Parts: sequence; C-alpha cells; structure tokens
Amino acid sequence: MQISYFHVPAEMPQDLRPDAAVVIDVLRATTTIARALHNGAEAVQAFASLEDLRAAAAEWPADARLLLGERGGQMLEGFDLGNSPVAVTPEQVAGKRLFMSTTNGTRALDRVREVPLLLTAALPNREAVAQRVLAKQPSHVAIVGSGWEGAYSLEDSLAAGALGHRLLELDPTGSSAANDELTAAVSLWRQWQSDPEACLRTATHGQRLIRLGDHDADFRCCAGLDQLGVVPTQVEPGVLRAA
Amino acid sequence: MQISYFHVPAEMPQDLRPDAAVVIDVLRATTTIARALHNGAEAVQAFASLEDLRAAAAEWPADARLLLGERGGQMLEGFDLGNSPVAVTPEQVAGKRLFMSTTNGTRALDRVREVPLLLTAALPNREAVAQRVLAKQPSHVAIVGSGWEGAYSLEDSLAAGALGHRLLELDPTGSSAANDELTAAVSLWRQWQSDPEACLRTATHGQRLIRLGDHDADFRCCAGLDQLGVVPTQVEPGVLRAA
Repeated sequence: MQISYFHVPAEMPQDLRPDAAVVIDVLRATTTIARALHNGAEAVQAFASLEDLRAAAAEWPADARLLLGERGGQMLEGFDLGNSPVAVTPEQVAGKRLFMSTTNGTRALDRVREVPLLLTAALPNREAVAQRVLAKQPSHVAIVGSGWEGAYSLEDSLAAGALGHRLLELDPTGSSAANDELTAAVSLWRQWQSDPEACLRTATHGQRLIRLGDHDADFRCCAGLDQLGVVPTQVEPGVLRAA
Repeated sequence: MQISYFHVPAEMPQDLRPDAAVVIDVLRATTTIARALHNGAEAVQAFASLEDLRAAAAEWPADARLLLGERGGQMLEGFDLGNSPVAVTPEQVAGKRLFMSTTNGTRALDRVREVPLLLTAALPNREAVAQRVLAKQPSHVAIVGSGWEGAYSLEDSLAAGALGHRLLELDPTGSSAANDELTAAVSLWRQWQSDPEACLRTATHGQRLIRLGDHDADFRCCAGLDQLGVVPTQVEPGVLRAA
C-alpha cells in the first residue's frame, strides 16, 4: 500500500486516483465528526456551501436535525452548534442528522467525494481508522489535510503523521511512504507524540483558538489519542456514518 | 525577529515584504552555489530562463565564464557543467562568473530578488548564514524552499529546519517561528540531525538521483553540515557573491 499525504486538498494532483482517502481536520471538524458519530448521531452530512446546507437541512424534520458550522472559528447565525467536539454530547446529537460546514474541513471532504473508500480521521480515532484502512487493503491511500485557508497546518500534519506512522508500523513490508509530505509528517509525529496537545497549542490555528478563549476542553478532546473506535465513512456523497 | 518558511516560492504571500530572504535548494543548486563561491568563483548569476542565461553569458569573455545548469537532474546541451557541487572545484571555477539555471532553485531566487537582504543557504553553510542573518537583525526573515516542480521537498525542509533551529537557538528571546511550516521544519531537523544524509537519500528527489546513479559524492557534499564559511549574497538582481 502506497501512502501519500497532501497538506491541503488543492495539492492533490487532479489525475491521482487513490482507492482510499482519509480527510483530516484536527482543529476541529474531523474530531467533532468522530465524537458526534460515537455519541449516536444518525449521520453527518458535510457541505462546502452554506446555501446548500440550509436547503438540504430544510428538507429534514426539525426535531431530527442539527446545524453545525463555523467560519474563522466562530459559530454561524441561525446554527445550533459551532464546531466544538465538546458540544456534540449524546443528549444533543443521538439519532439526529448533523448538517455541517466548516472553514476548511468540509471543503476537503468535497474535493475527494468521488474516492471509493472515504474516511475521516482525527487523533481520537487514529487507531480505528488505521485498522480499517489495512482491512480494506487499498493499493493507494491519500491522507488529505484541510489546512487553513489553503495553507499548510501543523495540527493536520501531526495527525497525518500519527496515522501514517501507525500504518507503516502495522504493515512494515507492504506499506510505504509515497511522497515527501508523508515522510515529514511521520517525523513530526515522532517529535511530538509524547505531548500532542502541546503541538496543537503551538500551531497557528491553536494560537487563534487560545486568543478566542475558553478552548481548554477542546484541546484536550482533540489531542486525546486512540480513544474512540468509530470510523466515519462516506456512505453516499457528503454523508458520513459510523460504518 | 520573525522567521517564516515557505515550502515553495509560490506559497509566499504576494503582499509579504520580509526584509531578508534565504533561498534553499539542497539538492543541489544552493549547495553548488556555496561551494563555487567558496572555491573562488567571481560570482554566480542565476537565471530562471535558459534563453536569458545564454544571452547574458554571450556578453561575457569566454575564458571567464562557465555555463551551469540542469533540468530534471540532467546536464544541458552546450553547458560546461551540470548542477553538481562536486564539479565546481577551484581549478574549474576560480575567477570565473558562473551563469546558472536549474529546475527549481534559480526560479526561487527569481521570486524574491526584490528582498533587500537576499542570501542562499544549504547545509554546508548553515552556521555562516545563521550568523549573518543575526548580525543584520532583520525584523522578518523568510526562508524559501525551491521544492520540486512546485511541490514540497523533504530536503529543503530539512535545511530550512536546520537554519531555523539554529536561529532560535542563537537568539531564543528575540526570535520566533512565524508560521507552522517553520515549526514543522524545525521538528524535521530535530528528528534527522544525527544523519542528514539519510534524510536526503530518503527524499523523493534523493531517490531520483540514486536511480540516475553515481551520486554518492554529491550526497556527502550536500549533507555536510557547517563546513563552509561562505555566505552567498545578492549584490545586484540575480548576481550572488561571497559577501
């Protein structure tokens, strides 16, 4: 299995046709998706466009839906929740469909929605995703970071490295790094693996959340490695379920 | 001093106005520039375009010029030398002007030619460049990698991290990482600093050179840390001297 990592969706070559893709947005979309599905949400439906999100949500029973979203780390007018993994408790989300749009994460999902096996990962479900990828035996898995407004992000690279490192560890003879981005991400993980929360707090976007205030629980949640068994999996375009 | 790193010139924001820039192309343009100037070349004049290079070289006395260049790691028709740091011996280069164009490195130089203090760095002159940057006290230094055909490169990130790490070490209170790319590059350096040659050989472009064959001396040369005191400095647009 070849393992690539692309810092942002735009860096993935147009002609690349991986048979599996794993989208990462550590702060905080894919962490929130993992926790929401773990806590019993029926599905998470991701939208790059807010207009499309509102139109789709309007078709859904009001008592079985939640609107989640943020732009620039702030909640959106008329939405039920922002982008915090701490807020998607069982009481809030069980049995509901979450209509979600975030600054970067859902745009990354949109870019790879045609890939046959599409998962999302964050640090809390890193091990579960690694096991699922290996069980499916794709020939090429592309890990796709969300970045920040088109630029490299430290926290997505950390999680990409955590996942890549684990895949190479579990399948040392069959798997290899297919690009320099993956090799560097694995080195990044090896440097910070004893304290991933410190890495998230060092990252530019972590600093931004710290300035907004009151995000300690979010950092703890986003940095908690291998705590959830859920594997968010695309079951139809844009719709993720715990599969 | 703020320290940024951009993986490739195109990732440097158009509106960023650093007062210093350090261009890196470890395999092999900026390693070759350092060695050529160390070995007595009068200057290195860098060109993004081969046509411009040939026109400028034609104006220069034939016995005081050398044409250096490669595309895809291979030497160019009608050129005197390729892009190997091993070839720029004192016998070859002393007193001569080197007209140079390479796949990625000289294009990066072209992108930042307006920056007031423009240096090039590689692993062999890492310490000398760090000392020079600190002596000049810029408020913002942008380290610019050359990458490979517009994409991230492991070896440029390693050297960017080596330089960033040293700047932060020499000036821990006055200097800080200004973007996630620099933080990640420093982590990369910390992971590989005991064996930088292994990192160069792991990189995609290192693998490409290994497939071309006969590059062991190049790898040793490009990985040799802090061996040269030379600081290639732009003295007029596109012209670098040991200053």
